[in-house]
Amino acid sequence: MFDELNGDQFREECGVFGIYMNDPASATEAARTTFYGLYALQHRGQESCGIAVSDGHRIDLHRGMGLVSEVIRSHNIESLTGNIAIGHVRYSTTGGSALVNAQPLVFHYLKGMVALAHNGNLTNTVELKKRLETYGSVFQTTTDTEVIANLMARYSQDTMEDALAKAMIDAKGAFALIIMTEDQMVGLRDSMGIRPLCIGVLDGNYLLASESAALDTVGAQFVRDVNPGEMVVIDQNGLRSSQLVKSTRRAHCIFEYIYFARPDSNIDGRNVNRMRRELGRQLAREHPVEADVVIAVPESGTAAALGFAQESGLPFEQGLIRNRYVGRTFIQPTQQMRELGVRLKLNVIPEVVAGRRVIMIDDSIVRGTTSKQIVQLVRKAGAREIHFMVTSPPTKYPCYYGIDTSRREELIASAMNIDQINAYIGADSLHYISMEGMFAALKTEGEGFCAACFCGDYPAGQ
Amino acid sequence: MFDELNGDQFREECGVFGIYMNDPASATEAARTTFYGLYALQHRGQESCGIAVSDGHRIDLHRGMGLVSEVIRSHNIESLTGNIAIGHVRYSTTGGSALVNAQPLVFHYLKGMVALAHNGNLTNTVELKKRLETYGSVFQTTTDTEVIANLMARYSQDTMEDALAKAMIDAKGAFALIIMTEDQMVGLRDSMGIRPLCIGVLDGNYLLASESAALDTVGAQFVRDVNPGEMVVIDQNGLRSSQLVKSTRRAHCIFEYIYFARPDSNIDGRNVNRMRRELGRQLAREHPVEADVVIAVPESGTAAALGFAQESGLPFEQGLIRNRYVGRTFIQPTQQMRELGVRLKLNVIPEVVAGRRVIMIDDSIVRGTTSKQIVQLVRKAGAREIHFMVTSPPTKYPCYYGIDTSRREELIASAMNIDQINAYIGADSLHYISMEGMFAALKTEGEGFCAACFCGDYPAGQ
Amino acid sequence: MFDELNGDQFREECGVFGIYMNDPASATEAARTTFYGLYALQHRGQESCGIAVSDGHRIDLHRGMGLVSEVIRSHNIESLTGNIAIGHVRYSTTGGSALVNAQPLVFHYLKGMVALAHNGNLTNTVELKKRLETYGSVFQTTTDTEVIANLMARYSQDTMEDALAKAMIDAKGAFALIIMTEDQMVGLRDSMGIRPLCIGVLDGNYLLASESAALDTVGAQFVRDVNPGEMVVIDQNGLRSSQLVKSTRRAHCIFEYIYFARPDSNIDGRNVNRMRRELGRQLAREHPVEADVVIAVPESGTAAALGFAQESGLPFEQGLIRNRYVGRTFIQPTQQMRELGVRLKLNVIPEVVAGRRVIMIDDSIVRGTTSKQIVQLVRKAGAREIHFMVTSPPTKYPCYYGIDTSRREELIASAMNIDQINAYIGADSLHYISMEGMFAALKTEGEGFCAACFCGDYPAGQ
Amino acid sequence: MFDELNGDQFREECGVFGIYMNDPASATEAARTTFYGLYALQHRGQESCGIAVSDGHRIDLHRGMGLVSEVIRSHNIESLTGNIAIGHVRYSTTGGSALVNAQPLVFHYLKGMVALAHNGNLTNTVELKKRLETYGSVFQTTTDTEVIANLMARYSQDTMEDALAKAMIDAKGAFALIIMTEDQMVGLRDSMGIRPLCIGVLDGNYLLASESAALDTVGAQFVRDVNPGEMVVIDQNGLRSSQLVKSTRRAHCIFEYIYFARPDSNIDGRNVNRMRRELGRQLAREHPVEADVVIAVPESGTAAALGFAQESGLPFEQGLIRNRYVGRTFIQPTQQMRELGVRLKLNVIPEVVAGRRVIMIDDSIVRGTTSKQIVQLVRKAGAREIHFMVTSPPTKYPCYYGIDTSRREELIASAMNIDQINAYIGADSLHYISMEGMFAALKTEGEGFCAACFCGDYPAGQ
Repeated sequence: MFDELNGDQFREECGVFGIYMNDPASATEAARTTFYGLYALQHRGQESCGIAVSDGHRIDLHRGMGLVSEVIRSHNIESLTGNIAIGHVRYSTTGGSALVNAQPLVFHYLKGMVALAHNGNLTNTVELKKRLETYGSVFQTTTDTEVIANLMARYSQDTMEDALAKAMIDAKGAFALIIMTEDQMVGLRDSMGIRPLCIGVLDGNYLLASESAALDTVGAQFVRDVNPGEMVVIDQNGLRSSQLVKSTRRAHCIFEYIYFARPDSNIDGRNVNRMRRELGRQLAREHPVEADVVIAVPESGTAAALGFAQESGLPFEQGLIRNRYVGRTFIQPTQQMRELGVRLKLNVIPEVVAGRRVIMIDDSIVRGTTSKQIVQLVRKAGAREIHFMVTSPPTKYPCYYGIDTSRREELIASAMNIDQINAYIGADSLHYISMEGMFAALKTEGEGFCAACFCGDYPAGQ
Repeated sequence: MFDELNGDQFREECGVFGIYMNDPASATEAARTTFYGLYALQHRGQESCGIAVSDGHRIDLHRGMGLVSEVIRSHNIESLTGNIAIGHVRYSTTGGSALVNAQPLVFHYLKGMVALAHNGNLTNTVELKKRLETYGSVFQTTTDTEVIANLMARYSQDTMEDALAKAMIDAKGAFALIIMTEDQMVGLRDSMGIRPLCIGVLDGNYLLASESAALDTVGAQFVRDVNPGEMVVIDQNGLRSSQLVKSTRRAHCIFEYIYFARPDSNIDGRNVNRMRRELGRQLAREHPVEADVVIAVPESGTAAALGFAQESGLPFEQGLIRNRYVGRTFIQPTQQMRELGVRLKLNVIPEVVAGRRVIMIDDSIVRGTTSKQIVQLVRKAGAREIHFMVTSPPTKYPCYYGIDTSRREELIASAMNIDQINAYIGADSLHYISMEGMFAALKTEGEGFCAACFCGDYPAGQ
Repeated sequence: MFDELNGDQFREECGVFGIYMNDPASATEAARTTFYGLYALQHRGQESCGIAVSDGHRIDLHRGMGLVSEVIRSHNIESLTGNIAIGHVRYSTTGGSALVNAQPLVFHYLKGMVALAHNGNLTNTVELKKRLETYGSVFQTTTDTEVIANLMARYSQDTMEDALAKAMIDAKGAFALIIMTEDQMVGLRDSMGIRPLCIGVLDGNYLLASESAALDTVGAQFVRDVNPGEMVVIDQNGLRSSQLVKSTRRAHCIFEYIYFARPDSNIDGRNVNRMRRELGRQLAREHPVEADVVIAVPESGTAAALGFAQESGLPFEQGLIRNRYVGRTFIQPTQQMRELGVRLKLNVIPEVVAGRRVIMIDDSIVRGTTSKQIVQLVRKAGAREIHFMVTSPPTKYPCYYGIDTSRREELIASAMNIDQINAYIGADSLHYISMEGMFAALKTEGEGFCAACFCGDYPAGQ
Repeated sequence: MFDELNGDQFREECGVFGIYMNDPASATEAARTTFYGLYALQHRGQESCGIAVSDGHRIDLHRGMGLVSEVIRSHNIESLTGNIAIGHVRYSTTGGSALVNAQPLVFHYLKGMVALAHNGNLTNTVELKKRLETYGSVFQTTTDTEVIANLMARYSQDTMEDALAKAMIDAKGAFALIIMTEDQMVGLRDSMGIRPLCIGVLDGNYLLASESAALDTVGAQFVRDVNPGEMVVIDQNGLRSSQLVKSTRRAHCIFEYIYFARPDSNIDGRNVNRMRRELGRQLAREHPVEADVVIAVPESGTAAALGFAQESGLPFEQGLIRNRYVGRTFIQPTQQMRELGVRLKLNVIPEVVAGRRVIMIDDSIVRGTTSKQIVQLVRKAGAREIHFMVTSPPTKYPCYYGIDTSRREELIASAMNIDQINAYIGADSLHYISMEGMFAALKTEGEGFCAACFCGDYPAGQ
């Protein structure tokens, strides 16, 4: 799955990171660590980002539109002093008032100041807003995060923990939250653990992050994942856990393994790179095709392609290379140059594919337009046969849990069968992994995962 | 009163402007007119500005840090389509999260979308916030405007007019408000009329503005001032008025006449330029000093200096000229160049003052530091005598109604008597207008004005 | 003459400033002083600016598009270390490659590095370029400054002084130059002294500046003007002068007195403010009109209006006020709002002009469009009669000596007589000062000035 | 070779591109194609870029600091109309006056306007400048390109072709040039062909480019490489060639194959990807080490690692992944976080290396600091053994032909032998390819290449 520039991909909505440093005199170290943590989570959101810090008395915030390295500069870090810091990256979109939606969201309520960083999506936002407005709430953004903040405030007569427990009963859907008060950092995960969140430790200071790779990047040790329905509160007394709501079922997002997460992350007990290689191996077992070479659609398909090559005994080669200077602002080709589109972003190495039967591995097909262009590109470079292999089953259903899929009518697999899709993209053959094969590769029988985008079974409602 | 760069001045907190165009297909005309209106009110606030528009269905907003001509560019106007527009300019200050405080504030509540533009200052903000937070409100800014929005939402079961009537009973202090819903524009003034607000008409369309000069600038006719305690609602049915709260006393800010407002504005029935000339004349009557020439501290002192010259028979000359390129970002002189300070911003014309007895007219003295520098500058240019005349009484008390005075301990007149101030600034003599003289010039016996900054009598509490 | 935004004005092409500090360890003091000097000369050019410094070994440069306070920020100053600094401001225009034309121009030639800051205009540029190109010169900009640099290099086998003497024989037209080598600062003025340049001293360090007011601003003392045809070389041995070419005639630009220069400057022995007042007095003597009030078109007309008022015995009032927030980027009114044009930039105070016979003083009329709008504005505000008075004779001829006049066909006075112009602008009467009157006010019989824009007699060719 | 951020890499100095469209009415198509061409050559220079166009009458230029997608935006393209366009990308460095050094360089000389885009480095610049200065040339930049422009102008009495022939006799060193006059495009390569330049055709229009991949990207066909010492002139009459100077020896830069060029380019008859794979195979033959897995240092080492894996029979895995959001502006870790350095830019996938004997393939070692960090990173991730393999011989000598190597004293291989380097970087073993092996892989016996950085034999002097 390649084409983030044309919107022909799934987009993770957010990444979150936080650190609580025990030394109250830690100056900008918390903000700086959070900067690097966000940097490691940049793939989870490129639209906007922000860092909020607390020095025990007040919360300061810096946020903006753009990449972490664009928004947060040295002088910003210098002004973010405090021993607690939380940060957020948000996915890429457009819109005039987008800055107002950037996170963390900082607000003042009866108990003081709070900052919220949220990954996920509530499914009952409209109903919750209506209810809160009836009580007199006003909304300045279109984010779920503001809804969560108002829920907390609604229960402001309670302790924060009770307030959050009540809010979690109200909120339906997927959420992984990091909350910072003036003197605490809190981590929270919905009752099915749809979106990831884990705990780390660095020199005795606790951290929270969407992915373990962010812990590695800042030199911290992975401790464990936050459990579904669990709240962890970190303060001067260390970390304490409470199970806010009972988790009746785990439903980890399976797409984190297939596409979103970094290959060097471990999520809910599984290493992402290994899962991808296993998916490739399984695909090779399910679809043994005669061919000369295996290539990947970069970047996410590489591990699976290596697995496929190992299982099938075919050689792996780098046949497509991503132009790493592709930026977000880009002069679009004129109609007459339209075919340049994918060529500007991907290079074929003709020497690898010319005259050969090529197996091409990708992780998913969204609208199909990009897959079609890539097939054309490789064919023009002289490939004799092209066998397109996908490491996930057909994506037929939209996600309501924090991933910005295309709408259902844009998902090619919701309207076409595999033969039709193959005809559209123009490959010699097209193969998807089977549901069973996918689960087998992940060493499960389907328990514990949300696979709604493939099967339409939504564990937390729509 | 000159030195806005050193903070040695009073700062108006805001200006507001709005237009309701009857033709629903008026495209960007409402936004464009509001742009010019804000431009004419730029002197009331240079920190940030914004315009919100409604097309009858939804409200769009553009706002930013900086001057009107910096923040609102052609392409912004192009995207602000709608037949109702309101705008706001805010005073100059610094601070990382300042953008969040820029207005208009747009929010969603039970009845739909609302935009608020507010000039003034509530005196019971802390108490109101506490009360609202107890009910579950959250606050994302530090503005009074957000408090007013939450008050409205608290009464969201009422009609908008009843809700505003109740909110006005809750809110103490000074406010001139323009409110826009999806299909109405509302103007509102506190029960004493402390901050100004007036009504205009342009080709049958109603406008609201902080000052009449903004109406002139866009080619509209002045209709009348909004009355203290009055609400005017403008929609497809025209303008209707209701007296929300009874006005027991008028207390128009007297500093609007002395310094803030544009000389070409008429406020609550008085022309600003004429008032300033009368203040100058009165000063000449109260303090007949032998001298050769009358000069003004630009820009606000000129009208008074001309009045003084006319009354005293002395010639008026341009002895000080403001460098019109003084910007907000400016490399500060090193300590050794410190004396350059005022010289970069004001030019003396030595030819005018050399060897002469000079009367210098200013509208007020805040901290005295700038007055001292100007006196030195004029003396170095060869003035034989310098008689410093001030068209307001000594400013001893801070303002709680929307003007960012220095704190009381910084107001030189709260700590020193006139002789001491004169010794500090180094003039040959220093004269303030008397309270009685000021009122006489304004053709009042003190009724109808707020003069709390001079006498400490706060009509709407502190 | 007001309307710089519509191009309906004359524009000075440049201002120059330089300082040689004797202490080689003066760090950024030279650059900092030059910053303030340029700031005081900002009215001479708003398009671009720059500062070059030398530390005795190498020359560094910072320049950019925009106002001095926009282009040169604290961190730029910090990197401009050296004991010699020269600076330049350039007039406002547009054009993609404009930055390449910003000055100072820094170049390397046989004798080392040189920086050039130039005010003026050569009249034989085309011929000089052709000649230099024949020898192999290449040109990367469209500036005269690059031509002068190549002339210097052409004579690079000579001493710098001989080279400059030869270059001055080659160059025809108007120029005031500041040149900096690694260890010297040189000032140079064309043989007629068309453009101004003067010498100052500050704590024993010499300075050069286009206007004396820039010396005042940085706290320096005025020493004398550079003489026509004179070169002054400033280095560790102090200042030495040589008369490079004989001056057969002085031809100081008369428009410096009428409009360009700051009123607090003294140029070639005359105070600008006094000259303007005398022009006003002379106008009153030449055209005694019955009226009630005298007003000025700000800002340049004020001194003349005061002179007129004093001579005529009529009262002076502030009838027009300039909106000081008028920026360079500005959303143009739509056609239907066209009449707003001048109203956005100038406020009339109706109270001053309503029902009165008004004398309005301006310094010149270029294309007449702005004058026409101002007359309309004042008439709409209720003036009974409007008598337009101009403190210069009709401007019929373009300037070839460094002022960006309109082309001849755009100069209204080159195509119409006074009655026609009056009919165009719509005043009740229109009066220009006479040539004789202008000279009388300047206490000359016409000797010593360039008045080519009025009479077409070009002292240094076209 | 990875660490471009720490300067621990070799940097190509430039890339050039140009197109001559036969249809004079081709509007912005030439500029647009050049934009995409530069985009495909972005890896050859990230500091600055620019495009110059000619419409047959005049040359326009847009250039700036930054990446192609940052500097050249849609509205820039819109203003670049003309049927000939040439462009340039320049390597990343810092420095205040860097913009002045951005290319193309546009200048005016006796024969009209010319634009120059240059890749390479002259070795006799100082001598040429001195000679030109003696004749009166001035230099405003520090680029060789300006020297070449002045050489052309020196012979401006000749035809352009004769002038270029003479200039090429004067100029020593390496250069691949694209020159545009008002109506011609010229390509030129030094007599040994050190830097690459090739010819393409698109719909009958000729193109020139540093690498063939840029031709592919815009959809053009590769025609042939420009020959050493050849000049091709393209105009309305098509393409004509002349051998300006005789080529006695070919000396193509061998580093283009090892590191600089894109893998999908063919340069002087060789495919880059294949050469890299052959280098990997050769390395495996020279150094058969017992191990479990082969990984690459991304991105340039991948092809060689695949070759090594194929030859050795060991599995290839993705063990290191590049963070693709690494930007040029980046908050540096504090000293205490220093070890984060490489971890922010490269991810190890511990699952791939833990407990295994790892062969790691890189293309070169410059200063060794980055190699050391990567070895540490992989060892921390649990690798049992690390065998570092380099696909080029030790880099002992600086390049004088257009590559910004470290200075000689910074090249680790100029001061240490292989054992010492291995001790420094901390691997279990370190192996470089041999000179003979490198040549064997490239199917040569050493003829035809410049390998001065390895052996110190400089074919075109120093």
